[in-house]
Amino acid sequence: MAKLWHKAVDLDGEIEQYTVGNDYVLDMELVEADVLGSVAHAKMLAAIGILTEEEFGRLKEALKEVLGLWNRGDFCIEPSQEDVHTAVEAFLTDKLGELGKKIHTGRSRNDQVLVDTRLYVRDRLLDVRHEVALLADTLARFAEKWREVPMPGRTHTQRAMPSSVGLWAGAFAESLADDLVLLGTAAELNDQCPLGSAASYGVGLPIDRQMTADLLGFAKVQNNVLYANNSRGKMEAIALFACTEVMHDLAKLANDLIFFSIPEMGYFGLPEEYCPGSSIMPQKKNPGPLELIRAKSAAVEADLFRVLHITRALPSGYNRDFQETKEPLMQGLKVTESSLKVARLIFENLTVNEETLLKSFTPELYAADEALEMAARGVPFRDAYKQVGLNLDKLADRDPRENILSKTHLGAPGNLGLAALRQRLSENIEQIKAAGSRIDDAKKSLLQ
Amino acid sequence: MAKLWHKAVDLDGEIEQYTVGNDYVLDMELVEADVLGSVAHAKMLAAIGILTEEEFGRLKEALKEVLGLWNRGDFCIEPSQEDVHTAVEAFLTDKLGELGKKIHTGRSRNDQVLVDTRLYVRDRLLDVRHEVALLADTLARFAEKWREVPMPGRTHTQRAMPSSVGLWAGAFAESLADDLVLLGTAAELNDQCPLGSAASYGVGLPIDRQMTADLLGFAKVQNNVLYANNSRGKMEAIALFACTEVMHDLAKLANDLIFFSIPEMGYFGLPEEYCPGSSIMPQKKNPGPLELIRAKSAAVEADLFRVLHITRALPSGYNRDFQETKEPLMQGLKVTESSLKVARLIFENLTVNEETLLKSFTPELYAADEALEMAARGVPFRDAYKQVGLNLDKLADRDPRENILSKTHLGAPGNLGLAALRQRLSENIEQIKAAGSRIDDAKKSLLQ
Amino acid sequence: MAKLWHKAVDLDGEIEQYTVGNDYVLDMELVEADVLGSVAHAKMLAAIGILTEEEFGRLKEALKEVLGLWNRGDFCIEPSQEDVHTAVEAFLTDKLGELGKKIHTGRSRNDQVLVDTRLYVRDRLLDVRHEVALLADTLARFAEKWREVPMPGRTHTQRAMPSSVGLWAGAFAESLADDLVLLGTAAELNDQCPLGSAASYGVGLPIDRQMTADLLGFAKVQNNVLYANNSRGKMEAIALFACTEVMHDLAKLANDLIFFSIPEMGYFGLPEEYCPGSSIMPQKKNPGPLELIRAKSAAVEADLFRVLHITRALPSGYNRDFQETKEPLMQGLKVTESSLKVARLIFENLTVNEETLLKSFTPELYAADEALEMAARGVPFRDAYKQVGLNLDKLADRDPRENILSKTHLGAPGNLGLAALRQRLSENIEQIKAAGSRIDDAKKSLLQ
Amino acid sequence: MAKLWHKAVDLDGEIEQYTVGNDYVLDMELVEADVLGSVAHAKMLAAIGILTEEEFGRLKEALKEVLGLWNRGDFCIEPSQEDVHTAVEAFLTDKLGELGKKIHTGRSRNDQVLVDTRLYVRDRLLDVRHEVALLADTLARFAEKWREVPMPGRTHTQRAMPSSVGLWAGAFAESLADDLVLLGTAAELNDQCPLGSAASYGVGLPIDRQMTADLLGFAKVQNNVLYANNSRGKMEAIALFACTEVMHDLAKLANDLIFFSIPEMGYFGLPEEYCPGSSIMPQKKNPGPLELIRAKSAAVEADLFRVLHITRALPSGYNRDFQETKEPLMQGLKVTESSLKVARLIFENLTVNEETLLKSFTPELYAADEALEMAARGVPFRDAYKQVGLNLDKLADRDPRENILSKTHLGAPGNLGLAALRQRLSENIEQIKAAGSRIDDAKKSLLQ
Repeated sequence: MAKLWHKAVDLDGEIEQYTVGNDYVLDMELVEADVLGSVAHAKMLAAIGILTEEEFGRLKEALKEVLGLWNRGDFCIEPSQEDVHTAVEAFLTDKLGELGKKIHTGRSRNDQVLVDTRLYVRDRLLDVRHEVALLADTLARFAEKWREVPMPGRTHTQRAMPSSVGLWAGAFAESLADDLVLLGTAAELNDQCPLGSAASYGVGLPIDRQMTADLLGFAKVQNNVLYANNSRGKMEAIALFACTEVMHDLAKLANDLIFFSIPEMGYFGLPEEYCPGSSIMPQKKNPGPLELIRAKSAAVEADLFRVLHITRALPSGYNRDFQETKEPLMQGLKVTESSLKVARLIFENLTVNEETLLKSFTPELYAADEALEMAARGVPFRDAYKQVGLNLDKLADRDPRENILSKTHLGAPGNLGLAALRQRLSENIEQIKAAGSRIDDAKKSLLQ
Repeated sequence: MAKLWHKAVDLDGEIEQYTVGNDYVLDMELVEADVLGSVAHAKMLAAIGILTEEEFGRLKEALKEVLGLWNRGDFCIEPSQEDVHTAVEAFLTDKLGELGKKIHTGRSRNDQVLVDTRLYVRDRLLDVRHEVALLADTLARFAEKWREVPMPGRTHTQRAMPSSVGLWAGAFAESLADDLVLLGTAAELNDQCPLGSAASYGVGLPIDRQMTADLLGFAKVQNNVLYANNSRGKMEAIALFACTEVMHDLAKLANDLIFFSIPEMGYFGLPEEYCPGSSIMPQKKNPGPLELIRAKSAAVEADLFRVLHITRALPSGYNRDFQETKEPLMQGLKVTESSLKVARLIFENLTVNEETLLKSFTPELYAADEALEMAARGVPFRDAYKQVGLNLDKLADRDPRENILSKTHLGAPGNLGLAALRQRLSENIEQIKAAGSRIDDAKKSLLQ
Repeated sequence: MAKLWHKAVDLDGEIEQYTVGNDYVLDMELVEADVLGSVAHAKMLAAIGILTEEEFGRLKEALKEVLGLWNRGDFCIEPSQEDVHTAVEAFLTDKLGELGKKIHTGRSRNDQVLVDTRLYVRDRLLDVRHEVALLADTLARFAEKWREVPMPGRTHTQRAMPSSVGLWAGAFAESLADDLVLLGTAAELNDQCPLGSAASYGVGLPIDRQMTADLLGFAKVQNNVLYANNSRGKMEAIALFACTEVMHDLAKLANDLIFFSIPEMGYFGLPEEYCPGSSIMPQKKNPGPLELIRAKSAAVEADLFRVLHITRALPSGYNRDFQETKEPLMQGLKVTESSLKVARLIFENLTVNEETLLKSFTPELYAADEALEMAARGVPFRDAYKQVGLNLDKLADRDPRENILSKTHLGAPGNLGLAALRQRLSENIEQIKAAGSRIDDAKKSLLQ
Repeated sequence: MAKLWHKAVDLDGEIEQYTVGNDYVLDMELVEADVLGSVAHAKMLAAIGILTEEEFGRLKEALKEVLGLWNRGDFCIEPSQEDVHTAVEAFLTDKLGELGKKIHTGRSRNDQVLVDTRLYVRDRLLDVRHEVALLADTLARFAEKWREVPMPGRTHTQRAMPSSVGLWAGAFAESLADDLVLLGTAAELNDQCPLGSAASYGVGLPIDRQMTADLLGFAKVQNNVLYANNSRGKMEAIALFACTEVMHDLAKLANDLIFFSIPEMGYFGLPEEYCPGSSIMPQKKNPGPLELIRAKSAAVEADLFRVLHITRALPSGYNRDFQETKEPLMQGLKVTESSLKVARLIFENLTVNEETLLKSFTPELYAADEALEMAARGVPFRDAYKQVGLNLDKLADRDPRENILSKTHLGAPGNLGLAALRQRLSENIEQIKAAGSRIDDAKKSLLQ
């Protein structure tokens, strides 16, 4: 079957391979979205009288057949078809003849890529948000469990003041909770239906864009038809930036864990079944998954910047450059999701070496506390600071557990606020699940 | 006066210059924030009995004096003082002796940098959001004014279908309106008070973090004290990403304008007083400000990057690396604000060459419309597409104005939805102003 | 077969999938390199008496069998094997039993990845350099052919002064010639044999690293064994930066061509068989391949970035993070090569619309020339500049061809220096071919 | 005085501030270069008869006066003058009247920026290369001094096999030596004289570009006049990439040192006078300079990417965007140079805690050696590996010093090849000094 834009002259083979790239492979992930978008578009065409109800019914059945084939692994996109849109339309035309050719009325491939991508991102962001909330909750529970276990707090990589395992894990849980805000904004901005923008300039038919948006379960129509195309890359970058922040949290967590689990530190123990070995040193248990999380945080950042660079200062309207934003988008979302799962798996199996942690406390960790106590007794802080600094060797040892639990202001080791945090996460999970249900309902209702 | 951490041994001169860098210059922009944070901290210390009310009163007066000096340009930070925190504390100690040394009780410089930065970003983001809303409104009014003026719509840089000046300008107005959502999220996440986190591990005093947060007008306390430090760079990146998206919109706008105003296109006329000349070609009127907007979008992106790279996978707790995030943060925010102003100035003075625009319409711009009309008459779209494609030379000319106004579905040239957009912008401006008032009230109340 | 580091405990399935990633797919491109490195290593082990000559002979035959299978598409790497090194060693052990287990003596997988990557990059850089030289020569010939055809020279996107098609194309040819210097340096630095570094700390056997380097045709041994591992990512970044510069040249070229071939400009005509169409506008001939070159330049830049970010500030010695540098390296090199081929194909078929170019000349293009002529007649240049600027409407028209040919200083339109450039390119091609022959000889000699 | 392109209409104030930016500040570093370029240009104008020898003499004296003023800190560039070129020409016109206006004959400001930047980069790259060679030599001497001191070699951050302080320091010395190749290529490509390219299209005067190139001590003329402008940003990126690689080496070095000098590791001692303290913890000695080196490596990387982003896919010929490449270029070069100096200072004062290093050796560090020895005795390596792995607790302790010195193949701890390395560095230093002398001679000869 011909491409959607087939003309009399054939494309040069080498050029064709270059322009198609691996789009036809990536697009296998967009089949469901393309079917949904097509059903909604056809239903709307019937509503405004371009198609009859009977024609719509036949189109819908054929589109459902595509979905069925795809679910069974029996639908494929040929390289010569370029993309999912052509493959689906080819299927319709093969099956329905003249009728198949009608479905493209009032839409453009740009339209389809846009709406398919939004639907895809909508699903992926829900998954990522769910995984973020689950990991944050796992960390909050871990923090709760180990809240009374002291751990040297560090600044400049060096031991600084008493801290706790709970404070450390809780810090990451709160950071991930803030990432949920970013991800929520990304989801909100993505939740605009571009369908009906056609080639960026609208069409001379009374298409009902609100109807297709409603059918697909979008929160609203993306109004200006040129903006729909101009925002290609923008929504992608917003989603990838939220993922980058998540990956930055994971990278810091991974880096801390790599450091805290080397034998010299020994604070934490990684389960052996997560530690690949060395081909030459039989004794090694390497923190491979953590190093890969760290590295993949740079990969997601690179995905973000690839999208930003590709689209910066492009002319208004569609440009073929946009095609290159699909791969980094898909990669970034999937890598973020799998990294979250791996991090959660690790925390569910991490051992805490309480004894080692206690042994790592040395008197100078209490220097700041000592100075503060002098200050509380009336010595100006700066003088107390100097005095303690000149008498570090005279610092008495203390009980670290007592020390951390005695710090009870908001957010201190003795007052981590984990119940409130877990409540916030639980509300997030409810919202995410509710959003997922709404989407599932829209899909079902469209295809029934 | 000594540094806050002054010890017996002096730092090597060259090393000192390297470590201080230009921090003491940048910190001149943080004087107000440092004074506000110090007053709030001192007031809280008085409330929990570490300072007497009388001591607090004297500290407040001295801090207000710092602000007065700074407002008159008479306060300066010596390179040897390193930063604003040291300079302010030095002033207090010079003036109040022992009392000045007390104010650092229960806080750390990390604390101060964190809270100063949040206060600074809070102000700058308000300004940026205001400018974004003003520019979006300017563009919406421009779109309204020229909504009936046709302009060739483009894809792949080439003329494609009829569009309008209104659609073009409106697309940017909507994109900026979406940026307001991103900026709002950045402001929301920034609106957490880190004060009281000390060196990341809390203090053994019953400090009241909720009180200082309230005094400074923050929406909430940033709870976990380690997260407060771990989020250094994170809040900065979030603000800079929102700025990057704004700058991307401006870069696309600038690039379009550069192209549309070359003599061969001639759609728009840039006011001569905005166009620098050439040193060798007397005839040139160069779109310098637009080219610089385009270039500066890459600079803000690089600022974002710099912050992301500096902080990726750093160990938990404070690291000196954080110091290097201050410059890109300040640069990025300021460049975004000034670029928005320049873009607005340009749009307030841009001329539209209606006649040139009309002349640029050629019959093949109506090919898609023709095919669609055939489709509406019952010819399958794919067949109509092919027929029109083979008979391009027979396309009749049309009235472009009539064409664009006849497309009236949501977001099409004949239905731009500008009233709703301007309403949305107006609500944004109200919110921004209200937020500004609340902040001003908090500041006044703290210093009165 | 077990992994090279197989231990008693099995890796968790999800973790294993995450850690292996698509390494086993990427490694299919390293089979030849792994075989070569293994033969060289085994030959050296025989030379120092670790293996007998007979054992080496059997290993070599089995390794050649691997290569034969791979050449016929019959060798594959199982996901459970993780990488090419394990797959090849598994083949040897299956086939040769005990002997197969001996080949890993005195080397590590790190060693193998390092040497395989260098061999891979050596081949790919030769291909890229060859393509750069061919494209530069194509551009030089194009410049020669059209050297007398005037074209408005631009600054700030606007017409500025007379230029020529030859000057324009020649500029890119020279830029690519300079890229050959960068690529040559990348090749030189890559041309160091890391084999024998083992796990970064050497081995307690008298291995002969000079011998393996010579056998593999490397220019030298990469001496310090820790540097061998520390340079992972470094050599990759150097190769990718050279590719980035090449892609930047292509992006500028593509962007110019997109602009110069829109109907309003019409300077150049793209062959129709290279121009994909639109799915909704039957009249469109879109410059897809050029837009993709432009977009892919951002992708290669992102590949570079990804490598730089992954490896910045990693601890000395091997880290699993390095694994993530393989994909961007391979992608970047291949995208650069295919983009060069597409660009050459386009230039071999580009048409030049001489008439349109001539029509685009307007008198003010001669303003600078007029001022300069006045200056040559004794009027101070600044005064001449002002006078001409105030009398732009009185500028006489001129013959553009005469104008460009009259500028004959070095590098001006009338003196492009193309013969010298083509000579330089021809020397480069000879060097590249000679280097390719040396490498082929080394391979053949190793495997014979 | 007016700008070089002054016209009847004045620029709007806000726009002017935006377009000038801080160019007038940055340009203070280009005064010498601008004077040199102007003298060379004037001398050439005299040689081709545009100026008399007497006029040239007066221009040269006035230009030398500019240089004298600048050397004494008495030359300044007004914001209203925009740049150094205007300021210098204004000085000439004030002083010499009509004659001052003549010097701009046959050149453009683009020309001047280009040649000034090349002269600036030429000087800075020499300084950077010198500092790289000095630091590499310092590291090589450090490696030599401590070559017999064992240190655990690491992979995956964990202790892996015996290594040495010498091997560790030598690895960085060799990496820096390779950076000298990159920096040399950057210097070579920068060493092309763009003067005479005018506004990118040459001039209609018989200017002698070879003469100005020779006078300024350039290796060659950058031939194609359009390429001269198109390469703006390219040469900058090449220099910044070489700096990025240097900074990456320093970042890894700094990161290692931060880790190896925390009390728990204690391998190295940082001199106290390089360690800033904490404002709240009197006991802290923070590795501030090392953390800043690490952070600044990200800043230089951001400078590189800023230049790459600004210039990617810009239209051929001059664009105002280029102006924004100046700041990252200057910043990147200067930060690299100062970071190198700081790193050298640290290494000249670093203490090595031999006893701590020896204590850190545990028997499992010899596991790979044990397996290899079994392999050398005829046990297949894979079997030896498994046996040792299952009997790690039976590994006997060994003498680490004897172990490292027994590994004597190329590049192993017992055979570091430092003499050859120092010889290579010494040759580099000679070349750099010779290049510096040639440049100084050219400058003196031009100004005498």
